[in-house]
Amino acid sequence: MRAEIVSVGDELLKGQRINTNAVFISTALAGIGISVGRVVACSDLEDEMVSLFSEALHRADIVLVTGGLGPTRDDRTKKAVQQLLGRGTELNPAAYQNLADRINKHGLVMSSSLREQAMVIEGSRVIPNTRGSAAGMIISCGEQFHHHSLVLMPGVPCEMQAMMERTVVPHFAALSDTAICHTPIKTVGIGESSLAEIIVDIEDHLPAGTTLAYLPHAAGVSLMISTIGQLHDGVDRDNRSVVEAIAKRAEAFVYATSEVTLEETVGAMLSAQGRSVAVAESCTGGLLASRLTDVPGASSYFLQGFVVYSNRAKQRNLGVPAETIETFGAVSEEVARAMAIGCLEKSGADFALSTTGIAGPSGGSPEKPVGMVCLGLAKRKSTNVISRTLYMHGDRKQNKLHFSEAALRELWQCLREES
Amino acid sequence: MRAEIVSVGDELLKGQRINTNAVFISTALAGIGISVGRVVACSDLEDEMVSLFSEALHRADIVLVTGGLGPTRDDRTKKAVQQLLGRGTELNPAAYQNLADRINKHGLVMSSSLREQAMVIEGSRVIPNTRGSAAGMIISCGEQFHHHSLVLMPGVPCEMQAMMERTVVPHFAALSDTAICHTPIKTVGIGESSLAEIIVDIEDHLPAGTTLAYLPHAAGVSLMISTIGQLHDGVDRDNRSVVEAIAKRAEAFVYATSEVTLEETVGAMLSAQGRSVAVAESCTGGLLASRLTDVPGASSYFLQGFVVYSNRAKQRNLGVPAETIETFGAVSEEVARAMAIGCLEKSGADFALSTTGIAGPSGGSPEKPVGMVCLGLAKRKSTNVISRTLYMHGDRKQNKLHFSEAALRELWQCLREES
Repeated sequence: MRAEIVSVGDELLKGQRINTNAVFISTALAGIGISVGRVVACSDLEDEMVSLFSEALHRADIVLVTGGLGPTRDDRTKKAVQQLLGRGTELNPAAYQNLADRINKHGLVMSSSLREQAMVIEGSRVIPNTRGSAAGMIISCGEQFHHHSLVLMPGVPCEMQAMMERTVVPHFAALSDTAICHTPIKTVGIGESSLAEIIVDIEDHLPAGTTLAYLPHAAGVSLMISTIGQLHDGVDRDNRSVVEAIAKRAEAFVYATSEVTLEETVGAMLSAQGRSVAVAESCTGGLLASRLTDVPGASSYFLQGFVVYSNRAKQRNLGVPAETIETFGAVSEEVARAMAIGCLEKSGADFALSTTGIAGPSGGSPEKPVGMVCLGLAKRKSTNVISRTLYMHGDRKQNKLHFSEAALRELWQCLREES
Repeated sequence: MRAEIVSVGDELLKGQRINTNAVFISTALAGIGISVGRVVACSDLEDEMVSLFSEALHRADIVLVTGGLGPTRDDRTKKAVQQLLGRGTELNPAAYQNLADRINKHGLVMSSSLREQAMVIEGSRVIPNTRGSAAGMIISCGEQFHHHSLVLMPGVPCEMQAMMERTVVPHFAALSDTAICHTPIKTVGIGESSLAEIIVDIEDHLPAGTTLAYLPHAAGVSLMISTIGQLHDGVDRDNRSVVEAIAKRAEAFVYATSEVTLEETVGAMLSAQGRSVAVAESCTGGLLASRLTDVPGASSYFLQGFVVYSNRAKQRNLGVPAETIETFGAVSEEVARAMAIGCLEKSGADFALSTTGIAGPSGGSPEKPVGMVCLGLAKRKSTNVISRTLYMHGDRKQNKLHFSEAALRELWQCLREES
């Protein structure tokens, strides 16, 4: 079965609201094997809705509409559906009771505009609203629309979500015989085209029903492996075989095959190994510490961070020798190493990560351009301090993110080798 | 002029990605008086794109498409446009040079799939990509499509945004005769309904053509005052009068009437006053330092940060007395004050901000619940150390953000009083 989503509301067209409802609905439908062909945001003009609903009902088995069911003047979704199907509305007793209870609770008086929220399209199945006033509807649209279904829900996210979970998903799950499996593959330290090159033959021989999508994001690229098929038809097995093949081929870059972040992955490894980390940051300015402490429970392995922007702070807090800074410059592998060693000593952690670089937009030179970063990683009971120089190409905030991603990758690789 | 936005990519239909590109484009177009009639997300199947582009070009003067211009196999937007318009592609020398430079910088070798990113539809105006490899295009679609325009841009947000700002917006602004003026009013420390209450009479008497929108965001609420009218029709004057009235009424909460962040505002005030800041963070875990150092030039006033998660780090790095922690607990105004004083001394800064609290999800108690934060602010040559306790209600990451916002507000208020 194929669905389309229509989100009604001018605020979606003026850039004032992000369409998160469509994301929720797509995800919920994917879980019962219904794929979404289009997501459309449109204005609340009646004629616009009529033509859009009509087109969508010809293309898709199910058209899910959110918004325009409330009590105000710009709530015109039901009017559009009446015009489209040539049907009237009728008062739904259960929806009226729910409405009356809510109005009562808020100390309001029933009015004709409020009462309108309990009126439903003739012949529709009512979707109870457990979080608000306006009733939802599942409408079978008759022969002219190949008996396709129109689902009307409010635009308020919590009301729509409760309707999807309690009524809409169970209703359509009973009619669907398709299974879908999605698995993300999270990578670090590789770009889209390089990744595409090393897995080209796997991509060329995907099993029938399996697709591979590249999802570039601020800090790198992830893959999504999706498999669709009949129920009990090896959908999970096909999906897993592709995921495993890619994870093996791109082993040096794949940190997870589930929806976790790099900082969560590193945090879980530190926890499992009973080890701790501290950080010494110059160019990342606290972002590395902040990412590590975004993870619930980070206090069990994250000891402390030093944000040492000035040379003086590097010397005083971490004991970086003034000569090292003078000889090699603040942005150098030598200083990164000294920062990591100082951080390890001061914190008593098992690992110390350091960053020093040029986030930009100013401060670059031909030898040390904006986007250059030197990373250091020191380990307890080891004299082998890792250092590395990398070059990024974003603006200041992007560079900070990429620098922190590269630093986390160093720690991830080290934890993996030692596990 | 009327526009439609088409976002290409299966990930938008599977609920794996929120369509933030559409929000950015809608906002940018609103700024030059172009309204958006529809926003559509569709799959990357060629036939689907051809029919969608065709419908949209009949309805709208401008159709802006994002996604599907990259080097991988699922990048099929150009193929669809070739089929739709019956045109070929040609190598664009400037786009090829940009691509070659980027490939070279990354130490890669030019391949035919990479080279494809510099191929543009015949007769199109190229949109240079200053942040990535794939060229964008503005295409006049000929008589069959009423000479409407098709704009092709990559789906990577930063690449698309730079293209919109540098090329697309100026191109279409030159063709429009409506004037629009938007002014943001940025606030801190007040919620949507409280703000609405104190400006209710201003909102009731807006000049014709002027609207006021509340834009709640992760750290609080901003307003957008928009005025639309014919060119040279007092649009700017009407807009400014409303902005000034609101900024005066809500003076204690308004930190800017332009698109700047609170950290940028605080940074500019520190620069202007020739003063410096350092931070001592427990519950914000580096986020406060990271936000301050997101601002270009922050190194001139941001000296250093201490991320002191453990009690031991609070004592060793900042000299917080063990008895203070024992007597009052790590999350207390007394500890926040001691952290700020220690940070001031260690750093030599003019101001020291501190945070200690419970970001969650665990670690709360009835007396000190998740979301509680104690802030401290110490000033050079002043024994008056400010401290304050606040309660937030988000998840871990939201709480960290709100804590950091509240800390920046303390510094902002202090800088304002002293300026």
